[in-house]
Parts: sequence; structure tokens; C-alpha cells
Amino acid sequence: MHALVFEGPGHRVWRDVPDPQIADNSDAIVRVDAVTICGTDLHILNGDVPETPAGTVLGHEAVGTVVEIGSSVRCLQVGDRVLISCISSCATCSQCRNGAYGQCEGGGGWILGHTIDGTQAELVRVPFADTSTYPIPQGLADEEVLMLADILPTSFEVGVRNGEVQPGDAVAIVGAGPIGLATVMTARLYTPGVIVVIDPAASRLDLAKSLGADVVVNPEADDPVTRVREITDGVGADAAIEAVGVSETFELCARLVRPGGRLANVGVHGRPATLHLEELWGRNITVRTGLVDTNSTTRLLELLRQHKLSVLPLITHRFALWEAERAYDVFERPRDTGAVKVAMFREAH
Amino acid sequence: MHALVFEGPGHRVWRDVPDPQIADNSDAIVRVDAVTICGTDLHILNGDVPETPAGTVLGHEAVGTVVEIGSSVRCLQVGDRVLISCISSCATCSQCRNGAYGQCEGGGGWILGHTIDGTQAELVRVPFADTSTYPIPQGLADEEVLMLADILPTSFEVGVRNGEVQPGDAVAIVGAGPIGLATVMTARLYTPGVIVVIDPAASRLDLAKSLGADVVVNPEADDPVTRVREITDGVGADAAIEAVGVSETFELCARLVRPGGRLANVGVHGRPATLHLEELWGRNITVRTGLVDTNSTTRLLELLRQHKLSVLPLITHRFALWEAERAYDVFERPRDTGAVKVAMFREAH
Amino acid sequence: MHALVFEGPGHRVWRDVPDPQIADNSDAIVRVDAVTICGTDLHILNGDVPETPAGTVLGHEAVGTVVEIGSSVRCLQVGDRVLISCISSCATCSQCRNGAYGQCEGGGGWILGHTIDGTQAELVRVPFADTSTYPIPQGLADEEVLMLADILPTSFEVGVRNGEVQPGDAVAIVGAGPIGLATVMTARLYTPGVIVVIDPAASRLDLAKSLGADVVVNPEADDPVTRVREITDGVGADAAIEAVGVSETFELCARLVRPGGRLANVGVHGRPATLHLEELWGRNITVRTGLVDTNSTTRLLELLRQHKLSVLPLITHRFALWEAERAYDVFERPRDTGAVKVAMFREAH
Amino acid sequence: MHALVFEGPGHRVWRDVPDPQIADNSDAIVRVDAVTICGTDLHILNGDVPETPAGTVLGHEAVGTVVEIGSSVRCLQVGDRVLISCISSCATCSQCRNGAYGQCEGGGGWILGHTIDGTQAELVRVPFADTSTYPIPQGLADEEVLMLADILPTSFEVGVRNGEVQPGDAVAIVGAGPIGLATVMTARLYTPGVIVVIDPAASRLDLAKSLGADVVVNPEADDPVTRVREITDGVGADAAIEAVGVSETFELCARLVRPGGRLANVGVHGRPATLHLEELWGRNITVRTGLVDTNSTTRLLELLRQHKLSVLPLITHRFALWEAERAYDVFERPRDTGAVKVAMFREAH
Repeated sequence: MHALVFEGPGHRVWRDVPDPQIADNSDAIVRVDAVTICGTDLHILNGDVPETPAGTVLGHEAVGTVVEIGSSVRCLQVGDRVLISCISSCATCSQCRNGAYGQCEGGGGWILGHTIDGTQAELVRVPFADTSTYPIPQGLADEEVLMLADILPTSFEVGVRNGEVQPGDAVAIVGAGPIGLATVMTARLYTPGVIVVIDPAASRLDLAKSLGADVVVNPEADDPVTRVREITDGVGADAAIEAVGVSETFELCARLVRPGGRLANVGVHGRPATLHLEELWGRNITVRTGLVDTNSTTRLLELLRQHKLSVLPLITHRFALWEAERAYDVFERPRDTGAVKVAMFREAH
Repeated sequence: MHALVFEGPGHRVWRDVPDPQIADNSDAIVRVDAVTICGTDLHILNGDVPETPAGTVLGHEAVGTVVEIGSSVRCLQVGDRVLISCISSCATCSQCRNGAYGQCEGGGGWILGHTIDGTQAELVRVPFADTSTYPIPQGLADEEVLMLADILPTSFEVGVRNGEVQPGDAVAIVGAGPIGLATVMTARLYTPGVIVVIDPAASRLDLAKSLGADVVVNPEADDPVTRVREITDGVGADAAIEAVGVSETFELCARLVRPGGRLANVGVHGRPATLHLEELWGRNITVRTGLVDTNSTTRLLELLRQHKLSVLPLITHRFALWEAERAYDVFERPRDTGAVKVAMFREAH
Repeated sequence: MHALVFEGPGHRVWRDVPDPQIADNSDAIVRVDAVTICGTDLHILNGDVPETPAGTVLGHEAVGTVVEIGSSVRCLQVGDRVLISCISSCATCSQCRNGAYGQCEGGGGWILGHTIDGTQAELVRVPFADTSTYPIPQGLADEEVLMLADILPTSFEVGVRNGEVQPGDAVAIVGAGPIGLATVMTARLYTPGVIVVIDPAASRLDLAKSLGADVVVNPEADDPVTRVREITDGVGADAAIEAVGVSETFELCARLVRPGGRLANVGVHGRPATLHLEELWGRNITVRTGLVDTNSTTRLLELLRQHKLSVLPLITHRFALWEAERAYDVFERPRDTGAVKVAMFREAH
Repeated sequence: MHALVFEGPGHRVWRDVPDPQIADNSDAIVRVDAVTICGTDLHILNGDVPETPAGTVLGHEAVGTVVEIGSSVRCLQVGDRVLISCISSCATCSQCRNGAYGQCEGGGGWILGHTIDGTQAELVRVPFADTSTYPIPQGLADEEVLMLADILPTSFEVGVRNGEVQPGDAVAIVGAGPIGLATVMTARLYTPGVIVVIDPAASRLDLAKSLGADVVVNPEADDPVTRVREITDGVGADAAIEAVGVSETFELCARLVRPGGRLANVGVHGRPATLHLEELWGRNITVRTGLVDTNSTTRLLELLRQHKLSVLPLITHRFALWEAERAYDVFERPRDTGAVKVAMFREAH
């Protein structure tokens, strides 16, 4: 088969690789029908993820069709359309039993396209297939379900639920990249009073507005702390959600959040941040970090099925699977291309 | 002044009564600008509420203007526009300190138009004024704020929050009277996957649909349990909300709710219900009862202010305050008049 | 092998039956080292559980040693000492993924000694062995771990956690049979202010006191509602826990609980109860039912291992496994024998 | 009257000052019967708290007798014995209504001995007296109730409850000063599996053991991270509680806590800490800061009354009130004196 292979920092290629085989009786082999690229794939290509060996097929999000199952798989059948979650779950370790699949201690967690071959391929082996894939309800398009492989549950669980967003809340979202935009979408599920999005790119702020942000702030033009105070009678945000992954934006969130508020970190960080405990120690602040668990996937699928959540505006570009290299070219230069999420399909689209 | 006075079971009259006076230094006297009638007022008139003496001014919902304050009132000033909550809160008893103002042990709770004179009058004395009224944000009309005196917090707190409605949930609401319709409105704040409303009146089902119900069921035509099972893959509702107040509808809710689900009772009951513990004991069901606490009022006001909640569709009829008797005539015969909430105003409308 | 077989209502016999065999690749065959009898076994013998066919081996609690595993079992090895939980969990259905193993929709739940052969035998087949057994920490005796198969998690989850017992709370426990006594034990983990136990049997009240009840009430001598009011300044119990399974005790709990309090039902009921909604509708009461999920088992094992929980006082009688019929004789007549839990062992004790 | 007056950094004196007077109708004047010193008082004396003006009477903890009340005080009477909480609560602002009295926006919060005159005096004016004092149950000694003015609710709310300590948890407490020791006491209310206390002072570790710590670690002799890993099968602490107030101990807590665990900061910090987001971003960690709200005081009083909590071991030294300067001498040199809490009394003790 063909796959997009990480060939060491800076190198990726769409090339022939051996077909995946059932390696454990909990595995399924899935034909990839639709797949997307994540910012984390770019981190691997940048050489920031040393545990990913050269030769690994990239990708941890996909929608596909089951072509083979291991002997202990009980919930899937050949021919089933499934969502492949970015998180694999052994279902039996103590973390999985608590719903923390991202912290799986039984061999799962984020493994696809990370420590084993991933989904940017014609076929993929999915370990713990029963508990790492989700059947797709009738009537949903591959590309909309695809958005539930990672970005939607990540923004919902790590941003919105960890931020304990409630009806009427003031929510500040720092960063309007794909994950920040998905956070706008999923925050709205709880009907906050006001969503403020902060980002230096005017085009992304426009997108944020179109997705439901009430107020957008360009920090190069306006002080976000001042703006959020104005909007909230001087109090600050009930929830501040970090969706960038650098220390400056984390520290900004800590200044945005009100006494008693929540700071939810969604960004992937490479360096430490400063926590101003001399100011925060007595302010009843909750800071939460998290890797997505994807325990909300069924709930999000139901919202899709009921037309209560619309995710297609996130997809800005579509390609054939064999055009994966071109898709990366576009996704890597969002400022030029306006790319948010790019989708690739087995069949012409 | 004039007021609508309960003259014993079956009798009400708009007549002259003495002006209210400050009786405690926490009191405020408020001029009533807008007021509404509640189903509970009809219960009193029916003689079902023996603790309400003849001679009591009815009404526990209003929007008004402060005309006098007691010496210990610190948050209000003469001239302030305020929402008068149906619940008065002493703020100091253990129930109030836990946010359970409806259970106030310090002399508050539901007292207006119940054990003391109420709001269907030109003036009303509001005890514990600091913690029993809410300042009205700029830009909101009296009549929309009026809906937050009772019906909105009741449906939100006792129905939706007690039912722990979450995004994607299947919610069954039994009863499409005023409180059931308000429950549709406030359930939507959490974006359930599907809202099913059950009521025998076709006109009310239409109203429910227009307010956001996804499915409506007339129990005279269709079996609600069968319909909810169909919609939920045979599982049942995540939350079933009782908004009628008779044992049959409570028992229906207990049949609608899925294993692990929540049954929130909002209706006011006069008789016991049968709890089928022989079926429910092992099904992980939560049943909650509640009197509104109005601890969500500030949150709901913020949603109004931010245009995230629209309550005006609840108001079907408008009158001048001196037309209170006519307003009752209309409100008492909803089948004929189509009344949901009727509002009365000091000034011509 | 030999096993205690249900031969139809009123009949049980210790007799020869075929050895169990691996039937599914998730199964394990476990040699039973210690086993106990539950009140539910007596219900089956009474003919109250029609879904249990004659010929079924009884018992759903055991400690044993793994003698064979299916091909997909990954957490167990032959020779491992394990606790066999009363609840089997498929680990993959939506209920199991939410921790509600007792509601398993994938073929688990309470099946042992109920719909398939159980643990009162020399050998038992345990389905979903990875997620239905627990490895036993070093240093713990079989008989103390045995108490964690059912009675401890049931009282802890369905009684204490559903009752949301908190430090300083007033807790009323109605019923001082095995489950009521275990509720005293596990309620103490949260250091309530006062535990009141209500039961008509003086000997059981004495036992309750010795296990940590602060106050005991014999309802034939004293009115429990009056006593609980006296103890709680007229307010009522924060949590009332039903541990009998008849409508009268459930209704008593509803009278014991304070406004805003929790009623947790642990008893297994055969008939409906009356819920006095005409009194309770406005009192902010939470009523919870539940079948044990055993999601607390690991936590309870850790408490045993750390000597923070002492369960041996529950075991009043010990037998050899082949004396199972005698053990039943004793367990069936607790008033005469003083039996709480009876344990049977493979090896002489 | 006489009082202990802050005379600017480094200076404190027991001297004559004017008697306090009722300044607001919510005030009470309380005669101080027992009072203690807090580490925060030493911070003020060190000049670290610039908002406290020279001339302020120090102290924010006391037990006393009401001698005068303002006209709007409704829950207190002259002659009542009361606990004066370190936190004053206006009861009406949005923070107070949410139970966050420490964040009071209505003029309360930590004000006694901070921005207004405090409790280390013969008399003290207590603002918002109804909601800032607690009646003392019969049968409790002043000195035990005194421990509930600050140190017990602080350790319980900001340490134990923010750390979400549950039965069976592994709890690491960094710091065995007064607040760390009180955290040991209050953590035990939830019966953790193991409490590990980390402190370089051997004498304090001994005290910690005597109060219920299961394991003590001297970080100068042993690596705390290694020890906690050993105790927890390599996983880390469920809850790590910072009870010192320097960045090093906060950062140690972040290394002690397991994936999915909680870090509760109780210490008062003067400098920022480093938050290693490059390690923590994906580990599902919750970090909470907090000023005590004292919303647990009633609960803790009930535990005292029921003899379920014993606080006297915290008091190592007792003085007459007029010996306040000597009490400070002792409290300021804990290494020499072994002081944990020192208590001063109006009457000879």
C-alpha cells in the first residue's frame, strides 16, 4: 500500500510500504476513507517528538471501513464504517477504567502515528479496536465525522469541560488556530454569555466571529486583559482557555481569569511557563492540563447526528489521499493558504 | 394603593388596601412596574394552600422601582430598577449560605403572596431586599426581565440543572404548560441532542416545537415510552423532567428515564406517587425534587443581556395593572385563550 | 467437581456437576479458595428471581486462583490469586465505559450465580476475566478480600457515595443486616458527625455500635423520626440510607432526610413504595437507586492493604466448602445463629 | 483597652489603644476570650504585607463573647460565645453568594488584623457579624474552637477539599508546619490509603506521625519523588498539597502528583514558581490555589462537637492575653521552642 512516511526531521514522503497485518487479537485493519493532518504531525516533522522513529507512517485521525478483525474483537464486523480515534484505549487499565484513555497504561493512549504506524495511509492497523473506534451513525459524511477523531473532543474535553464552561459564563479563548476555533464551536454547546477570542491574525479572528465568537481581540492592537475586564465589569473571565502552546499565552490566560475562575490549557508546550503564585495563591484559581481522552466522542457523534453541531466550516481544503504531500504543503503554510483543517479522501471528492 | 387580594377560596378582587410600610431595616418598598400571574396563584385561589390567609395580596413575581429602603439595606438605592425574585433570602441561615434560598430558615423562602402580601399591587414590601432583588442591566425591557422572577429559574434549576442535562443528551419533558415550555428554553442552553415534549394539547405542542422541541408526542395518540425508546435506540431518556404535578406524569417520567438517568420533578404535587422500586432499585436512577432557589438569576440575567436567551415568546397577553382581574380571567382558561404567561404593567403598553 | 446447585424454589444441594470450560476467549477458569453467601442467593432459593433456571450453580462472590485463561485475556496469568467481583464487566459498552459495570449492556453485569453458573463451587468460569477480577495485594487473607466481592462495594457505592456522605454529616442507616453493617463501616471512611442505625433486632444494634454507629434506635421502642430530629436540631439527616428492601423502610428514609438531603436506596425491593411528593416536591431531596458497579473495588483493596479498613468483624461463621449446605442452614436463620456473613474455604480453616 | 499593635516592620507592642466602637449596623463588638497567632501575622511584621498600616491591631483568629451589636445584627445576642472567623463575609456579593467568602467583594474577606484592627486585643469590632462569627456549641473549650478560626478550615478547604482527597488515595503533604500538620488532621477525615509528609525538620516529622501521617520523608536524607513513587507502584500521589509557600516546594508537588492527580496549593507565596508545562501539558493535572473561605466552619464545629476531630495537639504553648509579646517570642522561633500554635487567654489558664 501507499502511506505518508516520516523519514526523519524535515522529511516526509508518500511511498509504498508493506500492508499492515493483525498483530494482536484485539486489532482491526481498517481501510482509510478520509484522513486529516494535525499540528502534532508537524511537530514530529520538526523533530520535536523524539520517540517517533523515522519510518513511521504519520496520522492519528481517520474515518474508514473495517477490512479484517482479530479474534477477540467483539463489537466490529468487516465492512463497518468507523471513526478511528486519535486515542487508543486498552479499556482495562486503571486510567481507562476511569475514562482517562489518553493516559492509558495498558499499551494505548496516543500511539497511532506516534509510536506505531498511523492513519495517513491506505490501510491502518488499529489496536484495541473495540474501544478505539466508533461506529458511524447513518447519514453522516466521512468528512464531518473525521473532525471528531481529535480536534473536536480535544477542544471539548480539555478546553471546554476542563474550563467548566456554564451558561452565561464569560469565556476567553487565546489562539484562533484549528484548536481555538474548535473551542469556540464546542464552548457554544454550553451557551456562554460571551466568548472572547484573542489572536494576532485578522483572518482567523474573522473566522472565529463567523463560528460564534462574540468579541475578538487582536493583541497587537488592543490589550486583551483590559478588554476582558471591560466586558466583565472588571472581574475577568470565568474560563480562560489556552489554545496556542507557548508560555506567553498561558501567562496571558492567568491574567485573564477572574478570582474563582478556571484556566484550561489545551496547547502543547515545549517550554515551562511562569506561574505567578505571588498573585494567584489566594485567588481560588483552577489550572487544568490534559491530553484528550476521547471519552466524549459518542456524545459528539450524537450532536452531529442530531444536527446540533456543525463542523464542516473547519475544513478549508480537500485532497485525494495520494495528494498527501500537497495537503501537507498547504497545511504547513496557513498564513498563506488560509488552511484550518485539510482533509484527504480515498475517493475523488 | 390598589392590589389584587385573595378573599378566600374562589374569591379575588382588585381593591384599595393600605400602602405597605418598612417593617424591618432590611426591607425595601418597591413600586411595581410589571407583574405576572403564576399557576401557584391559582392553587391559592382554589384553596389548596391553607397557610395563605384571606386578605393576602397575591403575586410573587415582579419588576419594579425602589421607592424606600430600610436602614440596613446596602446594595439598593431609591430609584433603582429591580427584579423581585419569587424567593426571598435571609442570606445568613445555613440553607441560604449553601445557595438553597428556597429552603431559607431565616424567615425567607417563598413568602411573597404566600405568607405575606405579594407583588400584584401598586407597591410591595420586599424583605431582605439586598438578597431578594436583582439590579436590572441597562437595555432590558421590564417584561423580559419579569420572566426571570420565577418561571425561568424554576425550569433551569429544578428541571434542567437537577436533570443534569448535558450536550448530546436525550431529554424528555412531560408537560408543555408555562413551566414545561420554559424548560424547553433552558434545556437548550446545554444543547441536548434531542428534546422530546409530551402533552395532550396540540396547541401547546406546537408552541413547544416553535421554542425548540425536536419531537413532540401527544400521549392520547402515541405511547410516549415507545416513542422515546425508538428515538434513543431502546435506551430511554438521559433526563426526564416532570412539569405537570400529578402522579401519573411523575410515574411516566420514571418509565421514560434510562438506567443511570435522572428524573427531575418540577411540578407541584398534591398527592403521593407510586415509585416502582421493584423495577428501579437496581437501575441507578436519580430522582430530584426541588423548590426554586433562584441562585441562577444573575446567570440568566447575563444571558438575557447578551441576547443568548429569548423569553418573550412566553408572554401571550398583556394588560394594565388595574386590569388584573381580567388578566386572571384569561390566565385561568388557557385552553380557550391560549394563555401561557400574562403580564400586567403600571403604564399603558 | 462439586457445587451448590439451585434445584428450583426451596431446593439446593451440594453435588457433582461437570467442570466449567473456557467458552469465550475472554474467560478464565478460577479455582475457588473462599466463597460466601449473599441475601440474594436466598431470594433465588425463595423463587423470587425467575430468570435463574433450576440447575444453576449459586454464588457471585469469591476469592480464588486462576487455573486457565482464554486467548484474549491479557492481565491474568495461571496461578494468580484474584478477587472475583459480583459484577462482570465487558468493558466496552457505553455503560461500562462510564463506570456503570452493573448496568453492562455487553453481556456482563450481575450474571454469576444468576444467569450463568456461579462461585459456590470448586471451579468457576469467569467471563470478561480481565475486567471482572482483581489481583490481590500481598499480605491480605482470602477471607478479608472476600468481603470486597459484593457487600463492601455495594454499601460504599450505592449507600455511602450515592448518599454523598461528607465529613460532619448526620447519616441515618435503616437496617442493620449485613449490608447495613457494611454501610456503617464504609460511611465511616468519610467521618460523618453522627451515624444513627435503626433496626428492630437488639443484637444487630449492638453489632452496629461495635462497628462505629454513634446512636442506635429500635423502632419498636422509639420513634426514629423523632430521635433523628432531636440529634440534628430538628433538621433531619443529611443522608438516609435504606438497607432493608421493603417499602416501609424506604418511606421511613423519606421522612428522616432533611430538606436538601439525599436518600440512597441499597435494598432490593419486590414491591413499589409510596413517594410522598405532596410533601417532598419542594424540599430539594435527591433519591438514588443503584445496583453495585464495583468500580470502587481497587480503592477498597488499597484501604484493606493499608489497614485503614477492617472487614473481618462481618464474618461470623466459617465452613469448609463441602459444608456449603450447613453454611446455608446457618445463614438462613440469622436470628437464631447470629450470622452476618458466613465464609466457606477450600482448605480447612 | 490593651492590644498587640503593629508599629511598622519589625515592631510590635502590647499597649493601650482606644476601645473599638460600632461603626456599621452590621458590626458586633466582641470581648476576646482566646486568641492565637498565625504565620501571616509574622509576614506583616516582616513588612511583606504593605497594605497593613502601622498602628493596626494584629490577629484574625479568636473566640470571644459578644458585648454589643449593631442594629441590623439578627443572629447574635449580647452574651453569646462566638468563634470569630479569619474571613468576614458581607453575604450579599456574588462571591459570598457562591460560598467564596474569602473573595468577598462587599468589604469583607480577610480584613481583621490586615486592613482593620484585629483580634489580638481585649475587644474587637467584627464587621458583618451575623455571617462572620459562629455560635459555639455547648461543651467545647475555647481553645479547641479557636483552632477553627483559620488553620483548620484553611487546611481542609484549600488543601484537602481542593486536593479532592478520597478514601484510599495516596496524599503527599509538603511541609509540616502548623498548616501542614492541620492538613494531616483534616485529610484523615476522608481516610486516604496513605499520607506522606515531607519536611526537613525531624521534630515536625515526629509530630506529623503522631497526628496520623503514615510515612514521613526528610528531603535532606531521601528523595521525596522516589519515595512517593515506591509507595504508589510508580504512579505518584493522587493529591499533592503544598503547605510551605516557596516555589521549590510547589515545584516538588508538581513532580509528586500522578497523571490525573490534583495539586492543591495552601502556602502563601511571595515569588512566582515555574510550571513545567512541557511535562505537564498532557498529564491531566489540576492545580488549585485558594484563600480560605471558611464555608466549612459549621461542618468542622460539628466534628468537634461529636468528638470526631481532635485539634488540641496543635496547641503547644499557652499564655495570658497580656503576655502576647512573649507568645510572639515563642511563636517566632519554632525550631528552638517547638511551637506549633500558641494560644492566649483572657483568663488565667
